[in-house]
This record gives sequence, structure tokens and C-alpha cells, in this order.
Amino acid sequence: MTVSEEERTARAALTHLVEPGDQEIGGQLNEWGAVALVAAIRDGTWTSPRIDHYRARLATLDPARDLERCAQAGGRFVCPGDLEWPTQLNDLGTRRPIGLWIRGDRDLRLTGLRSVAVVGSRSSTTYGEHVAGELAASLAERTWTVVSGGAYGIDAAAHRGALAVAGSTVVVLASGIDVLYPRGNHALLRRIADEGIVVSEVPPRRPPTRYRFLERNRVIAALTRGTVVVEAAYRSGALNTARTASDLGRHVMAVPGPVTSVMSTGVHLLVRERGAVLVTDADEIIEQVGLMGDDLAPRRRGPVLPADGLDRLTARVLDAVPLRRGAPAGSIAQSAGVDPDSVVRCLGALDAAGWVIRTEHGWRLASDAREPEVGLRDGD
Amino acid sequence: MTVSEEERTARAALTHLVEPGDQEIGGQLNEWGAVALVAAIRDGTWTSPRIDHYRARLATLDPARDLERCAQAGGRFVCPGDLEWPTQLNDLGTRRPIGLWIRGDRDLRLTGLRSVAVVGSRSSTTYGEHVAGELAASLAERTWTVVSGGAYGIDAAAHRGALAVAGSTVVVLASGIDVLYPRGNHALLRRIADEGIVVSEVPPRRPPTRYRFLERNRVIAALTRGTVVVEAAYRSGALNTARTASDLGRHVMAVPGPVTSVMSTGVHLLVRERGAVLVTDADEIIEQVGLMGDDLAPRRRGPVLPADGLDRLTARVLDAVPLRRGAPAGSIAQSAGVDPDSVVRCLGALDAAGWVIRTEHGWRLASDAREPEVGLRDGD
Repeated sequence: MTVSEEERTARAALTHLVEPGDQEIGGQLNEWGAVALVAAIRDGTWTSPRIDHYRARLATLDPARDLERCAQAGGRFVCPGDLEWPTQLNDLGTRRPIGLWIRGDRDLRLTGLRSVAVVGSRSSTTYGEHVAGELAASLAERTWTVVSGGAYGIDAAAHRGALAVAGSTVVVLASGIDVLYPRGNHALLRRIADEGIVVSEVPPRRPPTRYRFLERNRVIAALTRGTVVVEAAYRSGALNTARTASDLGRHVMAVPGPVTSVMSTGVHLLVRERGAVLVTDADEIIEQVGLMGDDLAPRRRGPVLPADGLDRLTARVLDAVPLRRGAPAGSIAQSAGVDPDSVVRCLGALDAAGWVIRTEHGWRLASDAREPEVGLRDGD
Repeated sequence: MTVSEEERTARAALTHLVEPGDQEIGGQLNEWGAVALVAAIRDGTWTSPRIDHYRARLATLDPARDLERCAQAGGRFVCPGDLEWPTQLNDLGTRRPIGLWIRGDRDLRLTGLRSVAVVGSRSSTTYGEHVAGELAASLAERTWTVVSGGAYGIDAAAHRGALAVAGSTVVVLASGIDVLYPRGNHALLRRIADEGIVVSEVPPRRPPTRYRFLERNRVIAALTRGTVVVEAAYRSGALNTARTASDLGRHVMAVPGPVTSVMSTGVHLLVRERGAVLVTDADEIIEQVGLMGDDLAPRRRGPVLPADGLDRLTARVLDAVPLRRGAPAGSIAQSAGVDPDSVVRCLGALDAAGWVIRTEHGWRLASDAREPEVGLRDGD
């Protein structure tokens, strides 16, 4: 760690003073540093409409003891300048977190380098949870870290998917790292603390608030290379995360769903109106967030059928050859709309290649030349 | 009608001579006209590798009688230059149909002016059929014509949706207009002949072939202002229609579905790699194909909540006001991270507006100020 204990203690104090993302304090902090800012608040060198509140609050704090207690509980408080600080958070400018309270053995900076946010609605459907879990598991298997908010629904499914394959996952809380909210996800969040990383910019023991949820989303967006929204209604916090990701120049991706599902309306909106990239699996996500050229998704195409190799004229003749009862070349020429000479030439080539058979009634398809969806069926 | 009977008869003959979309004949036809071309084939003025075939075929034809029989059966043969000719088909250049065999009382040109293709897989899912039917019904209710290929699955669902609201629908067949293929859709195609329009460039009595299915798709694409693909696997004919639509400068739209469904892989591919616009309902389709400014889809958003009108500071104070047991202004100030003076001012305004109530313990939310998804719930 390269941050002085004085600076760290001052920053810890500041996390108690203001809400996450406070731009006034953030601006001063970036300019003066925490030690000078705290001193300026105490001695009145700096003033603000909220100075009385700040001063009263400072008087009640013992940040050094807070840090000690956090360390005793197995936590740490990481600040800008620390080796573990995820420098991508600096993109938040004056809204950069003052510091991050952390539980978990892994290094947040290293873990964050190859990370993707997988977020979505709490009121998710079985479909959404299934997809979130599958995507997270596949991402984790490819050594990508899955970051989410620990909420019910999509968030929980994403964390669980990563844990299921012993992958890396980070939860960013809107409460203190010792307040495992929501209570119904207590066991899951506990497990993330043991096997992944729990992060918050809100000091220990603080409950979540609506405001903190929204500001928490900006940390998820800034920490990751891109945000994948799995399910979201029109007014979902996940869309707020996506917007922040977009503002920060991160990739915004959306997983489509049935147009009949309210829970997919928000993701379709992202694709239609906000330039989100439609993604359907982990390969496509990694193609977005991965290194260019290194992580291209495999090209999508159907099975290559043997008939694909035939030239246009021969394919047309083949299409006109009956399946069962043979037909003379003249009748094949007529139904293919190809002149008889060419038909005879093509039939010869098709015969040599085993596509057609000459019978007493004329030409028919060789039985093993039948492909799935051949003939009329391929007009689909 | 403005085309001479001579020209019409010559064109009818040519539809028997070549397969749909034949560019050699198409080029000659656009240059010379049908009467001169047929004469040139007969007298050898024009030559082609297929000239023997053409000549032999011509000798067997009686196109005047074909036209008469078609008229007796209630059909007609419409050619470029006729008032009923859909001039948008001219965009096909040398691949323009020689003429169109038609059944149905409505005027094809007028019907085609405001038309959309709704196409997709034959192996559709219940979801896809439901969506295709709903989209078609909504489009038809808004006086748009639904064009499709009469196949099983999505095509049939689209035609049925339009018919269900007594709307306008056109089926473009890959067989003669008297060969109602596939047989399982016989009743449906019959009904389209009665209430809508049945169209084909293949002469009566001819069966469909794989080649004709593919060429039929270009007519669907060219006839309409845009093509909507509802469900399609990677190798679906619907993607071929979409590609032709795109090549012709028509709108290409795709209806998303579950990423777990093979039948939606093709539509997601269209959005990801071929610039198709993701659409989720008829409004969004009409926004694409409609007149600019006239047919904008309504803006999508969630319900407007009363708290949306509050300024940021007041909203933050409101978030910190407890739901049940009152709290003093000082404690609200602390949990909101707002200075006490501002809190008192905001609480006054919120009180006046009926959002909060002062109790013996302090401030709490007014019970009717509770919104759906207020507070923590909105962190979703």
C-alpha cells in the first residue's frame, strides 16, 4: 500500500461525512487530498453550505478506531493510490469513491481488470435467472469476473452462476460491508465474502438507502469493462447502471427476451434507443469486452450442407430431381427451367458424385443424398 | 389496364419458359418488350445457350388459352405497365417478375402501398406464432397489409392474425395460384383467395420447388416497405427474405425472443450483424415503415411517479424519512447526508405537499405518499 495512514484515516472519516458520489467533497478531495480537506473543514479554512453539519459530524467520529475494527473483522479500506485501487474508478472524476471498504481475499484491482457486470431486475423470471446464471458461469469459466449488486433475481443468479464454477465474483453493496442486504441473500453474500469480494463505499454498519443503491450502480459500471443487462422493466435500476456505463465509455450489452415479457421491455429499449449491443451468450459478451482480435465470438451459421458446394445450375437441376419415382431428363429439364443439354451434363456430374441414381423410369435422388430439410423443406 | 393483349400473352408465355428471377430473359425483356422477345426466340434473331429449350417449350404453349382459363377461374395476369402493377417491384431490375398471376378482389398495387412482410420459420414455437399473430392483427387494424408466404408456422400465424381482424393480407406463393401449398394450409389459403390476395409469378398448375421458394422471397421483400422476421434459425429462408429486403433498401426488422430458443438465433443474428432494427410491437414496426413524423411509436417509459417532480436534494431527504416510526430532523439529516438547515427546509416543503407527517417521535412518511416500489425497492 502506498497511501499514508494519515490520508487513509482522513478518507475513512470523509466516507462517514458525505453520501457516495458527493461532487462537492469529491472536487475538493481531488484538489487538496483528504488530510488537508479534513483539516480545512475543522479549522474553517474551507467553507460550504453544509460546513456546520460536516463539523458536527466530524466531532463524533473516530475513524482510526473504525479502520482498526474493520481490520479485526477481516476487512480493509482501500484508497486511490493503493496498489489494490482499481484505477478505472478514476474515470468517475469528482464522483470517484473516497475509498472502498472491502471483504475477501482476492485483490480487487487484479480481479477488476477482466470483469463484466451482469445486472437486472429483482422481479426476474425463471428465464432471466436461468440466462443470468448460465452467462455468469460461462464468463467465470473463461476467467472473467462477474460483478453485480447482490440483489434478488438477476443479480443473485449471476453471483450464483459464477460461484457454481468456482469462478470469481464481486458484489458491490449499497450498505456497509457488514450489513448483508437483502437478508434473504444473506447466505449468498456470506459466501461471496468467503470466495469472492464484497465491496462498498458506504462505511460499515450503514444501511442501504435508495440514494445509495443508485450511486452504487455507478461503481458497478465504472469497475467493469462492460455491463450486461439481462432483464429489466422500463424503470429498473439496471438501466441506470447501463446509462452510467455508457457515459463512462464502457460497453453496454443487453440480453433479449420474449417481447411478451414486461421484464424484457427495458433491455429491448436499450438495444432500440440507447445503442446497447444485443448479446445472446458469453462468447458475444467477451467479444465486446475482450481484447480486439483476441476474443472474437465464433461466426454464427447453420450446418454446412453438402449441396452448398454445388454450382447454381447443378443445384437447380438437383432440386428438380424427384425423391422417389424416377423422371426422364427432359421432364427434369422442364421443371428446372434449364436446357436439356445442361441437364444431361449436370445429371452426369450428380451421378458421379452419388447424388442421383438412374432407374428404369429415369433419374431419382440417391437415398443417402437426402439431407435434413432438403427440397421444399428448405424454403422455410 | 394499359398493357396490350399481345404483350400480356407474350409475357404469359415467357412465365412458362423460364424460372422466376431469370436474369438473361429479364434483361432482354426490359430492353425489347415481350412481343419482340418471343418473336426473336421463334425466328432465331436472338440466341442463347438455352435457345433450343426455349423454342421447344414455346411450341407446346397456348398462352392465350392459359389467360382465358385463368380469367374463367376468377384470376388475372397483371404485367408491368398495368394500373394494378406494384411499381415497387421494378426495383428488382432484370429480376423483376415477368408478370403476376393473381386471385382476389382487392387491387394489388393499392394494397401493396402500405404493406409489411411478416415472415419466419415453419418450425415456429408457440411464442413465435403468438407474436406473429398479434403483430399482424395490430398492423392490419392500423390499415397495413400483411404480406407473407403462406407456409406453416410464422407465415400462417401472420395471415391468420390479419384475417382475424378482417384486415388485408397477401400471400405470395412459390407454386401456381391454383396450387395451394402446403396442403395443410389449404383452408387458410382458400380464405386468403376470398378475402385477400393470392399472388404468384409461377404459372397456374405448377408445383413449388426449392428454387421457386427462394425466388418467391424476393417478391415478398420487394413488394413491401419492410420485412419483419419473427422467428428464424440460422439457415432459414426468412433470413434470405431479410437479405433481399436489405439489398433493395427496404426496412429489415427483427422480433427478439429467448436466447435459449434455437428459433430466435436467426433474428438475433439479424440485429447483431446485419443492422436489423429490433422491434417489439406494431407501433415500432409502423415507426420504421410509416411516413416520417406521421407514424412515430409512442415513447417508452415506466409510470411517472410523483416523486419524479422533486428536486434532487428534496428527493434525498424524502428517501431518508422513515416509513413508520417518526425520526427527528437531525437523524434524517445524518442518514440523508444533508445539512440540518436544508433538511428542515425540505421537510417543510414535503409537509406542505402532503408527503411527510410530523409525529411525537419526529417525521415519518404520510401513508398515502407510499408509491409502488418506493424506497429500497426502487434500487432494483
